[in-house]
Amino acid sequence: MTFADVREAVRRIAPHVHRTPVVTSATIDVRVGTRVWFKCENLQKVGAFKARGAVNAVLSLGDEVASRGVVTHSSGNHGQALAYAAAIRGIRCAVVMPDHAPRVKVDAVRGYGAEVVFCVHHERDRVAADLVAETGAAFVHPFDDPAVVAGQATVAAEFLDEVPDLDVLVAPIGGGGLLSGTVVAAAALSPDTVVLGAEPAAVDDAARSLASGVRQPAVTDPRTMADGLLTRIGELPFRILSQAGVEIVTVTEAEILEAATLFLERMKLVVEPSGATGLAALLASPERFAGKRVGIVLSGGNTDLAWYRPATTAPRNR
Amino acid sequence: MTFADVREAVRRIAPHVHRTPVVTSATIDVRVGTRVWFKCENLQKVGAFKARGAVNAVLSLGDEVASRGVVTHSSGNHGQALAYAAAIRGIRCAVVMPDHAPRVKVDAVRGYGAEVVFCVHHERDRVAADLVAETGAAFVHPFDDPAVVAGQATVAAEFLDEVPDLDVLVAPIGGGGLLSGTVVAAAALSPDTVVLGAEPAAVDDAARSLASGVRQPAVTDPRTMADGLLTRIGELPFRILSQAGVEIVTVTEAEILEAATLFLERMKLVVEPSGATGLAALLASPERFAGKRVGIVLSGGNTDLAWYRPATTAPRNR
Repeated sequence: MTFADVREAVRRIAPHVHRTPVVTSATIDVRVGTRVWFKCENLQKVGAFKARGAVNAVLSLGDEVASRGVVTHSSGNHGQALAYAAAIRGIRCAVVMPDHAPRVKVDAVRGYGAEVVFCVHHERDRVAADLVAETGAAFVHPFDDPAVVAGQATVAAEFLDEVPDLDVLVAPIGGGGLLSGTVVAAAALSPDTVVLGAEPAAVDDAARSLASGVRQPAVTDPRTMADGLLTRIGELPFRILSQAGVEIVTVTEAEILEAATLFLERMKLVVEPSGATGLAALLASPERFAGKRVGIVLSGGNTDLAWYRPATTAPRNR
Repeated sequence: MTFADVREAVRRIAPHVHRTPVVTSATIDVRVGTRVWFKCENLQKVGAFKARGAVNAVLSLGDEVASRGVVTHSSGNHGQALAYAAAIRGIRCAVVMPDHAPRVKVDAVRGYGAEVVFCVHHERDRVAADLVAETGAAFVHPFDDPAVVAGQATVAAEFLDEVPDLDVLVAPIGGGGLLSGTVVAAAALSPDTVVLGAEPAAVDDAARSLASGVRQPAVTDPRTMADGLLTRIGELPFRILSQAGVEIVTVTEAEILEAATLFLERMKLVVEPSGATGLAALLASPERFAGKRVGIVLSGGNTDLAWYRPATTAPRNR
């Protein structure tokens, strides 16, 4: 996967995704003591950057392959994204989802015309493989796929086009599709920009993988509100990120909650906990970013807000 | 107040306010059966378009007048906006607020360095007048002020610059500063665009004023979740709006709630109920907008979300 693939992805997906806005907040700048720009992928199609990778992957398929449809497994944004991408191309899509998936997520996938196939979580690989074997559909992995990574890289390509001289660029890491795409785009467009990953401390396999140089197993039974980042870092992202020497900052649940609440109350943006880990990293160690021009990717906005506790339950004035 | 004042306001306030993004949503387009663009003043400084009018008014004051400070009364966004504007100019600001104002709103005004003066609601005019008499400060009315209206007009000026060929442009109406500014800007920049106001049915004095041609008294004891639109239509806005023959669409509380929920869940934007009345008007009578290119101003995002009921309380799938 090279920057040529990213450039091609930019062109390919442009008619089907939003060029999302970049916003700033004086409140946040004062709070963290530096200048921060936010790329609002929560305002992207399907509510997350995942639309980019899925659209790029589906539009990259040859006609004959595409005609047999696409399959993936996902309890979250990639499932919606692939359903959206398949609808654009007018092909069939099946999404393998866990039995306990929230109804809103199931309805969202079905709303794009995709079929939902339920199974218990640990059987998802087998169920998806069976679907591929039965139908000849193409499996589109959420992150271990060069076309998906090239699609996610368009976030940073747009961001650096709009704010060219960022010192630091922070993106969340789960499987690593977004972060590895960010590295590829930044290396080509702004080689002096330092790319950092932000990961919940509760599911820190990527941080440990990159620190040790060996891809670590998934954390067992992880507990984090950042439900979009539960996945183990993928092989392709791990290769790209370790080659680039990317560092991962881990953040606590309290820092994630604080960041998501700041987005909601101060910036009027609905950001899912996973999408708030970048700002959480700033809140965690402001000294590391002091005086720098910092770009942060808000990766998504799909949340039921169950984590939110309104400040107005505080006592009244006087 | 003419378009020359608007042009001047654009130049004057540009360094101090955001050029807010314009966003679209396929979900909403399908839902209402037309193409809709949203101007995100919820992402404006202080969380609402009011920053524009207040900054324009404060920066328009002569040095000697400004040196004595500014005063207003407001339980909402104008108070914060004036405090912000005064901080920019480095002058004193006092905001008269009701005794029962929520602590977050009081803290926000104080956060910009302004003084908060509490009083019972019906004495606010007298208390503000006393402050003006004591200190020689300039009173900056929330909407009955040409410099404020010219500032609010910059919303539509930016909007029509970005989406030039709107058939309809909808903005909420409370006191009428935003809507009358919208009329002045649209008349100059896009004379074929029809400007409509959106007002809660529970506080429909503006609709009745413009339908009857006579400015009506404020509704007594109004009950609406759109707490930013409780105010009676002002004299200057009434003159501008009746001269232009602007029509006001009234919306129910259920329509306002539905619109605010769509913004939160589908568009990932925190929009206060007052700011959601434009979309509520589309939901109320989609046939009126069918096939048209519609622009809607999201006027603000300052809300505690107490009105929100998550969809995820719905039963699970299967």
